[in-house]
Order: sequence, then structure tokens, then C-alpha cells
Amino acid sequence: MAANKRKAKATQESLHRIFTIPEAPDSTLGAIEKEMSQNLAGFLGNHIVATDKPLTEIEKDFDCSSIPEDPSFVSDHMRHLLDKLVSQSVHTSSPSFIGHMTSALPYFILPLSKLMVGLNQNLVKVETSKAFTPLERQVLGMMHRLVYQDTEPFYDEWMHSANHSLGAFCSGGTVANITALWVARNNLLKPDGDFKGIAKSGLFKALTHYGYNGLAILVSERGHYSLKKSADILGIGEESVVAIPTDEYNKIDCDKLRKKCEELEAKKIKVLSIVGVAGTTETGNVDPLDDMADIAQEFSCNFHVDAAWGGATLLSNKYRGILKGIERADSVTIDAHKQMYVPMGAGLVVFKNPEAVASIEHHAEYILRKGSKDLGSHTLEGSRPGMAMLVYASLHIISRPGYELLINHSIEKANYFADLIDAHEDFELITRPELCLLTYRFAPKVIQEYLSRANEAEQDKINGLLHKLTKFIQKRQRENGKSFVSRTRIEVSRYQGKKILVFRVVLANPLTSKEILSDILAEQCELASESVSFLPELLDICQA
Amino acid sequence: MAANKRKAKATQESLHRIFTIPEAPDSTLGAIEKEMSQNLAGFLGNHIVATDKPLTEIEKDFDCSSIPEDPSFVSDHMRHLLDKLVSQSVHTSSPSFIGHMTSALPYFILPLSKLMVGLNQNLVKVETSKAFTPLERQVLGMMHRLVYQDTEPFYDEWMHSANHSLGAFCSGGTVANITALWVARNNLLKPDGDFKGIAKSGLFKALTHYGYNGLAILVSERGHYSLKKSADILGIGEESVVAIPTDEYNKIDCDKLRKKCEELEAKKIKVLSIVGVAGTTETGNVDPLDDMADIAQEFSCNFHVDAAWGGATLLSNKYRGILKGIERADSVTIDAHKQMYVPMGAGLVVFKNPEAVASIEHHAEYILRKGSKDLGSHTLEGSRPGMAMLVYASLHIISRPGYELLINHSIEKANYFADLIDAHEDFELITRPELCLLTYRFAPKVIQEYLSRANEAEQDKINGLLHKLTKFIQKRQRENGKSFVSRTRIEVSRYQGKKILVFRVVLANPLTSKEILSDILAEQCELASESVSFLPELLDICQA
Repeated sequence: MAANKRKAKATQESLHRIFTIPEAPDSTLGAIEKEMSQNLAGFLGNHIVATDKPLTEIEKDFDCSSIPEDPSFVSDHMRHLLDKLVSQSVHTSSPSFIGHMTSALPYFILPLSKLMVGLNQNLVKVETSKAFTPLERQVLGMMHRLVYQDTEPFYDEWMHSANHSLGAFCSGGTVANITALWVARNNLLKPDGDFKGIAKSGLFKALTHYGYNGLAILVSERGHYSLKKSADILGIGEESVVAIPTDEYNKIDCDKLRKKCEELEAKKIKVLSIVGVAGTTETGNVDPLDDMADIAQEFSCNFHVDAAWGGATLLSNKYRGILKGIERADSVTIDAHKQMYVPMGAGLVVFKNPEAVASIEHHAEYILRKGSKDLGSHTLEGSRPGMAMLVYASLHIISRPGYELLINHSIEKANYFADLIDAHEDFELITRPELCLLTYRFAPKVIQEYLSRANEAEQDKINGLLHKLTKFIQKRQRENGKSFVSRTRIEVSRYQGKKILVFRVVLANPLTSKEILSDILAEQCELASESVSFLPELLDICQA
Repeated sequence: MAANKRKAKATQESLHRIFTIPEAPDSTLGAIEKEMSQNLAGFLGNHIVATDKPLTEIEKDFDCSSIPEDPSFVSDHMRHLLDKLVSQSVHTSSPSFIGHMTSALPYFILPLSKLMVGLNQNLVKVETSKAFTPLERQVLGMMHRLVYQDTEPFYDEWMHSANHSLGAFCSGGTVANITALWVARNNLLKPDGDFKGIAKSGLFKALTHYGYNGLAILVSERGHYSLKKSADILGIGEESVVAIPTDEYNKIDCDKLRKKCEELEAKKIKVLSIVGVAGTTETGNVDPLDDMADIAQEFSCNFHVDAAWGGATLLSNKYRGILKGIERADSVTIDAHKQMYVPMGAGLVVFKNPEAVASIEHHAEYILRKGSKDLGSHTLEGSRPGMAMLVYASLHIISRPGYELLINHSIEKANYFADLIDAHEDFELITRPELCLLTYRFAPKVIQEYLSRANEAEQDKINGLLHKLTKFIQKRQRENGKSFVSRTRIEVSRYQGKKILVFRVVLANPLTSKEILSDILAEQCELASESVSFLPELLDICQA
């Protein structure tokens, strides 16, 4: 009993220590931190194991479902994390890993993140975030202005207004899209006479009151899957997301969009929102936003732009024209953790009309009192960290022209790579970059020539085999661990709109060099030659 | 022109530097980082200004809506952040700030957070998170087992199963509650014959198909505001959240709950979920979960427990009995960033049935392919950071018994403070702590005695004046910056269930000492005596 008491007292003391005594600089954790601070790329390169270990193997290190009954020393646990977790994580910032939308981070982000965590503010209300609240409102103001280019007096009036909001910060693009459609839904089905509005009375009564047979969300077939998820969550149902076909440049076909609007109107199905895509996830193309805005206006419906990926292009005076018409959208989603080089967890949506968010306003006694400037009264999330600080710091340190250089550089590098692929006789470029994304596949000249003169059945056969080869190369390349491209399936017009499996490349990492791009193609050629079944079979058919 | 080109080249080079050259240890940012690493409490104490500056004043430092056209040096910007942001942030980890649910962080969290940011994994899919995926699944398994105490074979079977999930990580309790109710809604209104289910076909068709006149969510009047928000988002409408009265201990009245269920059943309104609260935000009380589970079973409806705050109590063998019945819930929300001492942004929900999440499953071509173990197919959010690592490390370093000590210590400190308040003749204890929350107000003995013999009208008058006094003291105390308690309004049975404005205290910071608690009461007495109008008027009436 006395021994137990002593043990408890010792544990109590060591617990007190972990809240009060910092890690010594020469401790394992201290040394790791120093290594990261001095050379992050070196640290990641040293600790992330290059070769691929099957997930089922990795799972064995994470198979215990009991919470430990014995405490671990910080140093021991750190070694464990390095050995089991860090070694098997993904080197997202490697310049030869060009398959992700997550890339390198500026160095200042690391100590700043530490500051953010140490301050541990909760942005849901002023009481737990104070200056972080006006800071977040300012960042939303800046992003709003980037999109809408409103006047100085406009921002003076609304940026810090208690009952208004120029946007909402959130953990990522999915929550941003849900928030945008939630606002659109609640504004469409607003209080009216005896009807108290959908927020209070729900969707069933709302549709009944307004006499609609249903709602629809219209987006190109390249729209992000989060839109279907939004429709599910918001009670509208995935089937109300209508996929409009795209043209050969992966842009929505506006004639078909207009026709669909007419068709739905005739059926008394109200279009809740037309969603433009500014940077499709798979090909990086931008919809004709101006034309879409016209159609939204014509049918008096909400117009949302999902610019989670491409929104940062607005920072480039040279290329912002690609997104022309975005300033006519009711709301725009932008992910700062994509092309704004901020770490994971920084999405946002901006609203053209500062009053739009009133339709999702929530209050409570102890928090978000009416008239307060608490950010939480206009966001989907409640408690949230101060990620806005990292966006704020990046906007100041990198500045608009700095971002412009980064963005222009990415787009131009993608064009360079597209030319490289085009000129290489063993590769077929599938989609040319509009932003810094492109798709292609390995297909030697003889196969490409065969495809160009083949009939549909012959094409199908070859493409079927090419799918297997593409998958083989992509997987093998990932497993080898030197470089990484992702893969996806997209409809390609030159193959009668059939789905083709392609390599997908995102060239946002400023450290990716031309040499790396050449090396990636060389590696893929070599991997293709290792395919003992698919490639020989393909060549046999095409050379016959 | 040549000058412009040179400028562009110089900027290009300095941009390259921010991605490749770390901050020197003797730079401003390096020095700040060192100061934080060596003594976080000291750093925060030195840089956060104690006295309150009005928000409208702070806003002046954050009023520019243009993104800077000129880059800032990192060091200059850091000084700016210290001066304008850090100085005016909230000292959430101060041991005398006992009004928030956000408190101190263990030291190891800071370097670990830096590691997390540096790795910049995206947990939406295996491809961008690899070992982080099984790690997160393990943490969900541990939290699931903490709640449900299932068998070893159960976890062996489900923890890493591709098409199942024991829970979902998310940014916070609000998203966790929305996710739980989304799952409940989709399972209730599931596919049935020709009806394809609410996820596909939406709420209107679902209610029509099942012949319900509406849905309802039943929760005590102490339920968190996120439940109404959930009902709004999910298309059910806030009005379907029915607030059931509580008893004098702030626990749901189960007779009234059962009666309401019968009443709704008679009206063909289906109870979507009965929500138990395990740690109300305002008073920290826990509903009679076992009795609620009986009622949920009786009416065949979903039972969710919002244990965002109180869930961590399960780590204490001594006190976990307070939450008895939680193991019968279909889902449970727990915030690791509250009583588990993890930084902001770590909420989660666990599901009793590993198949429950199938009802919210989403897939896409390039991501979340069927059969993959991608976490994103069962979460509301898409891209998300690897916060699970911080929970994992805390569970290992602190361990279950370590957490037990922290939790027991908090509860016992709250009881100590309650006794202190009770013994003090100038204070009235309003709610006794069940977990580590309590509420009280300043009310000298003579006022308390007057109230105890006064009629209702007299009580109302006194309470009206006391509200003003409580607000005065709480605001003044916050403005002075030495200590902080929050305030809220709660129904108090000794005052005919009328709403009373109270101080609310959360005693989760392990560094809050008994001396600090005495000092807080002393400061409040002094502040009360500075109230030139309310206190004298009160004393006049009561002494008359």
C-alpha cells in the first residue's frame, strides 16, 4: 500500500514535469528537433525509408488496441516513432514526388507552427482567441478581395462587422464546399411568411412550402467527390448532383448545362447551385466561369466555384485571367494547404455577399452571444486551431508577387514537361496543362500509331492492355521509392470518351528540377521494359 | 526592363531560399523558437500582455484587406507577430485562467507538432499518409476499446479492416457530432426495396418512403449547440431538436424523455437519436446514460453520447463509473484537445458497430477506391492533418494511469474549490462539480439569507441586480488580466428554474494550485467592492 502510494506520488511528479520541464536540447526529441530545424529535407531523407513496405506489414506495428498501462519515456517513444512511423510515412515534400497536391513547405512554417501550437488558441470565440479573431477576419478579407476585388470602403465596412462574415476558415476544401452549399441551401429555402425557413423547419417542410419537386446541384463530370458528399450530408441526396459532360479540354459543356437547367425547371426541380470547377483534381482544367455565371443568372440560381486547387492562381497577374468570371460567383472555395504552401488543415470559403452567412448563424448562451464577433457563429466547425496565422504570415513573407512567381513557375514547368512528354516517342500526352497538372501514359510510338488507325474494338483491346501496363509502372515506381506520380482514370475524347488510365502529375513543388522530370520518364521507360507480359504483348499486336 | 528582370531573378532566388535554407538559430525566429523550447510558460508570460485591450483597438492592426505587394523579411514579420498578435492572444495555458476548456500542454507536444507539420501527411488516403493510416486506425481502436471494452478478437478483426471503421477523426466535437448523426440518419433511412436510401435520394423521398411525419433528436436542455447546428446541416431542421428538461443536478429527466418519445411516436415522428451528454459544457454533469440506453432500446432508436468534454474520464478507473451506460451507445464523441491535453484540432467519434460507417461511404476514381484502406471514405472531412500522431504519443507517454492521475486530480481540485466557495460567506455555490466543472457567484451572506426567505418577486429583483454584479466582476477580472473565469446563464431549481448568471470554472490545468484558487476568490471580492452601484444597492435592499 505504501509502495503504491510512493509509486503514485512518483508518477504525479513525473506528470508535473511533462507540463513544466522542457525537453533538454541533448535529449532524443531535442536532437530530432534540431536536425529538423537545421535541415528538414535532410531529416526526411534520412528517416523516411525509400522502399515500399506493404500496408499489411506496417499494420503489425499498429495492432494493439489497449491504451498502454505503463508510461513511456519521451526519448524511447521518439525513437519508436522514428522507427515505425516516420520511416514509413510519405515524403510529400520530395521534389521527385510529383503525384500529390501536397508539396514542400517554406522553412519559416515550422517554427511558426510551433508558435501556433504553443499559443493553443481556439478560434471559435474571441474569449479564447482574441487577436487571432481580427487576424482571421483580415485573412478572409484579403482572400475575398483577391477573388472579388471589391472597393476599400467595402472592406472597411464588412471585414470586422459582428453580424457579417466575408468567409469561413475550415480544415479543408470538403468542409468549405459543404459550408458553401449549406449557405446556398438555407438562403434558397429561407423563411417566408409562416414558413420559418429550412434551418429551423427542415428540408421536407421547405420543399413542400416552396412547391419544389426536388433540388439539383449541377457540376461537370470532373467535379470533386466532395460535392456528392455535401449533397448527402445536406439531405438533398447524391442523385441530385447532376454531372454535366465536358468538352475535350475537360471543361463543362455550357450548352448541355443550359439544357439541363431548362429540363429541371420544367420538372419543377430547383437548381440549388451551379458549381464551377477552377482546377479539376484530375486534370487541372478550369471551367468557363463567365459563361456559367451567365447561366446561373439566367436561371436565378446560386453559383459556387470550387477553386480548392486553382484558386491560388488568382495571385498571378499573368494567369489570373484563366479564372475570369470567378468574381461573379456567390462563393468560392480555396485551399491554402495546396498551392499556397501552408501545411495541411487550411481550407476556406469566401462569400460575395457579407450577409450570406446569416442563414447559417448559430448562437448559444455561454458562447457566440448575439452581436459578438465570435467566428464560430458562422462556421460549420466549432473549436478550431489558429491556422489563419500561417496563411497570414505566408501572405506577408512571400507576398503577392512572390506567390505569382511560384505559380507562374509551376505552370511553366508543367508546360515544359508536357513538351518533353510530347517529344518523347514512348509517351502519350493525354491532357495538356492549363494550370500545373497534366496527365500522360507510357505508349511507345508504334502503339500510338496503331491506335490512331485502329477501329474502336482494336483500340479497346490495346487500351485495356495499356491500363495494365500503366498500373504496373505506377505501382512499381511508387514501390521503388525514388519518385512518385499518381494515377487516375479519365474520359478521353480521342477514344470516344472512354475512360483511360493515366499518370497524373502535379508540378507545384518549386524544387522539382528539369533533370528530375527527365529522370522520371527514364525510370518509367525502364520499368515498362521490366513488364514481362503486357509490353511484349502490346508490341506484338501493334507490330503485326 | 533589365532591372525588372534582375529584380524577378533576385526574388526567385530568395523564394528558393525560403524553401531550402532554414532560419539561422540566431535569427529572430530562431531565437523565439529557442525561447519557446526552453521555457514555454516564460515565453507566453513575457509576450502576452496582461491587460485587456478592446477588440476594436486590436482590429486596427488587422484592417488592411490587400495582400502585400512587397515581401517581408521573416525576422521583421516575426517581430510584427510578437508585437501585434502574440501580445494580444489569450494565455490559455495560464494556471490562473480557469474559464476555458483549453489548458496547458505537455512539453513534448511542441517538438512533436513540428514533426507532424514537417511530415505534412494528408490522412485522406494511404497514398499521402502511409503509416499514419494504421496509426490513426489504432488510436481509434484504443478509444473504441476505452468506451466499449470489446474483446481482443473484435479488434483483431475490425481495427484495420478496409470496409469498416471503428470511428472517425475530425477537427473537433462539432464535426464529430455531425458525423454521428449523419451516420444515424443514413442508417435509419437506409435503402429499402425500390427506395435507394437517403444518401442517394435525399430526405424528402426518405420520409415519404418510410411514412414518417418528421424526425426528432432528443437531448437535455443542457445539450451543446452543435446538435442544433447538426440538425440544420443534415436537413432535419433545428426545431426537431427537442430539449428535455433536467433535474436539479442538470441531468436529463428520464420520465419526461420517455413521455416525449411516446408523444412523438403517436404523431409518427421518428426519433432519429437520443443524445446523452457526458459532461455538459456549462456544468460538467453527466446524464443517466444507462437509463437513456434503456429508453433508446425501448423505442428502437439510435443512442449517441456527446462526451466531447467528459469522455476522457473513462481513463480513470476511479471515476469511469460516472459514465456507466456509455458502452451501450451507438456512437460517442470525444475531444482529445480537451481533457487529453492535445492541442486544438483533435476530435473523434467512435461507433459501436464497425459497419455503421458504411452508410456514409464515399468513393472516387483517383482516391478512396473501393477496398482501399483510405480513411477518407468514412469521414466528413477530406484532406486532414496527422493529429492522430499527437494522441498516439500522448497515450503512450502519459499512459492510462497517468491520465487517471490527471483526471482524478482535476475532479478532486474542483471539489476542493467547491468546498472553499461553500465555506466562504461571500459566495454562493450554484452547481457542485461532478467532473471538474463548477459554477458559482458572488453573493454575500446577507444577500443569500435574504434570498432564502424572499418571495419570488423579491428574488427576481435581487437576482436581476446580482446578474449585473456578476457580469461586472467577470469582465473586470478578465480585463485586469491576472486571472480568468468564464460566465454563463443556467436554470437553477432553487430559483424556480429561472436563468441565473454565474461564474463558470473548469479545473483541468494540472498547474492550477490551491493558492491560485484562493487568490481568485480574493480578487473577486475586491472587484465586487469596486462596484459603486450594484453591490451597495443590493446590500441596502437585503439589510433593510
